[in-house]
Amino acid sequence: MTRNELVALIYQKKSFLCIGLDTDLEKIPQHLLKEDDPVFEFNKAIIDATADLTVAYKPNIAFYEAYGSKGWQSLEKTISYLKEKDVFTIADAKRGDIGNTSGRYAKAFLNTLDFDAITVAPYMGQDSVGPFLDIPGKWVVLLALTSNKGSDDFQMIKTENGKMVYEHVLQKSSEWGTPDNLMYVVGATKAEMLSSIREIIPDHFLLVPGVGAQGGSLEEVAKHGLNKDCGLLVNSSRGIIYAGKDEDFAEKARAEAIKLQQQMQDILEEAGIC
Amino acid sequence: MTRNELVALIYQKKSFLCIGLDTDLEKIPQHLLKEDDPVFEFNKAIIDATADLTVAYKPNIAFYEAYGSKGWQSLEKTISYLKEKDVFTIADAKRGDIGNTSGRYAKAFLNTLDFDAITVAPYMGQDSVGPFLDIPGKWVVLLALTSNKGSDDFQMIKTENGKMVYEHVLQKSSEWGTPDNLMYVVGATKAEMLSSIREIIPDHFLLVPGVGAQGGSLEEVAKHGLNKDCGLLVNSSRGIIYAGKDEDFAEKARAEAIKLQQQMQDILEEAGIC
Repeated sequence: MTRNELVALIYQKKSFLCIGLDTDLEKIPQHLLKEDDPVFEFNKAIIDATADLTVAYKPNIAFYEAYGSKGWQSLEKTISYLKEKDVFTIADAKRGDIGNTSGRYAKAFLNTLDFDAITVAPYMGQDSVGPFLDIPGKWVVLLALTSNKGSDDFQMIKTENGKMVYEHVLQKSSEWGTPDNLMYVVGATKAEMLSSIREIIPDHFLLVPGVGAQGGSLEEVAKHGLNKDCGLLVNSSRGIIYAGKDEDFAEKARAEAIKLQQQMQDILEEAGIC
Repeated sequence: MTRNELVALIYQKKSFLCIGLDTDLEKIPQHLLKEDDPVFEFNKAIIDATADLTVAYKPNIAFYEAYGSKGWQSLEKTISYLKEKDVFTIADAKRGDIGNTSGRYAKAFLNTLDFDAITVAPYMGQDSVGPFLDIPGKWVVLLALTSNKGSDDFQMIKTENGKMVYEHVLQKSSEWGTPDNLMYVVGATKAEMLSSIREIIPDHFLLVPGVGAQGGSLEEVAKHGLNKDCGLLVNSSRGIIYAGKDEDFAEKARAEAIKLQQQMQDILEEAGIC
């Protein structure tokens, strides 16, 4: 999906919501466990109930790998099902290795599974990120400033020129791709830092996790992070997909997604974006 | 496997070799392609030909994921087969995410697949690494200074106190685990930096990729990196597993592994380690 197509989706749905599919057999409604593939049945119901409200879905690959090859099959079915919908798809995989190996991960997620985007860790530098950027029509979502407490440990170290490590990551990596194939992960729990981040990368899309279960605020994120094309994908996982625990779990998920979509519509209209 | 057991293996085999299983259908001998699971058949033959010469095997997970759920099945069969041998097993996965998600990766690789160790990326900090360290009897191999060119981009940035980012990673993370459950990746292409690394972490094992195909020297690595328990696992992947392209590929691989094991035996004897 191109940047223009993604922006058009945001306008059409009046939403910049991304729903995280962190599907866990211990948390999904018990009645699904009798199905052949409970993970896929759960995802399918969530997708059916929310696809008109969200511009993106983000399966969290760890949750599929935890079930081995069966989990990988659930992932394959989920991405196939998502490809029938009008949505942007992100493999939340946080991969990154020497070039030869990153190329294999790129093939796995962007070619074979055909995700639109993959999250990538920056620690190993340009030649670990490049193979993902080299695939035409696909996106890298690079970790910059994450939403967890541990982001203080290395991302926030001050370097000799006064900038923090995550600012180096933003600055240097923005030369490797363009706003048409590179986004960044910036946690909602650090919303007040979005203004200075926008000075470094005014045009790139940001994927913002941490709203909801992790405590980030949508209003704060929008205030500091919106750009002229919206430029934001705000993720919610547990707050939506586990809103209900019974047979009506999909309706409960829809109700939570509607709340976020309506807040987003207000934000977009107020900002004059759509 | 405990540290004592790993050290005993090194003494017994007079080797600190790790063989990387970067198994690629385009590079394995063509006659294997008629098998039901060519990836596993290749791995099995390589393992049978080299298990007495190497202390560790390191399947590179990207190469399995590139084949989807079928690749994951090859990985499951490979680790099951490795568990029958007297070797240390490393999932070269370079994972790392928020705690909740790292916990799922830990489950996938250290519990379900039952690897002894997993490679982990440090960018997201302590709470992204902790869930792997929390699993009793298992190991984290944390990226510190990698063997690729891109390691200059962020790992080598100088911070305000004069240390480089990778030195912060070593220093801070060494408080999260112990030499009994935490190793580090240090590339052989940076062998001359091993002496200063040994000042920060004298006791930890180092997993050293980059010997062979990437150009690093075993002698240099040993000179700067050995400690009293050896403290090194030196990886070779392509140089061993793709030494031959025909029906005798396993014997060719064995011949390459013997060369490295004999060099390692000389090094260990010269250093008075065994």
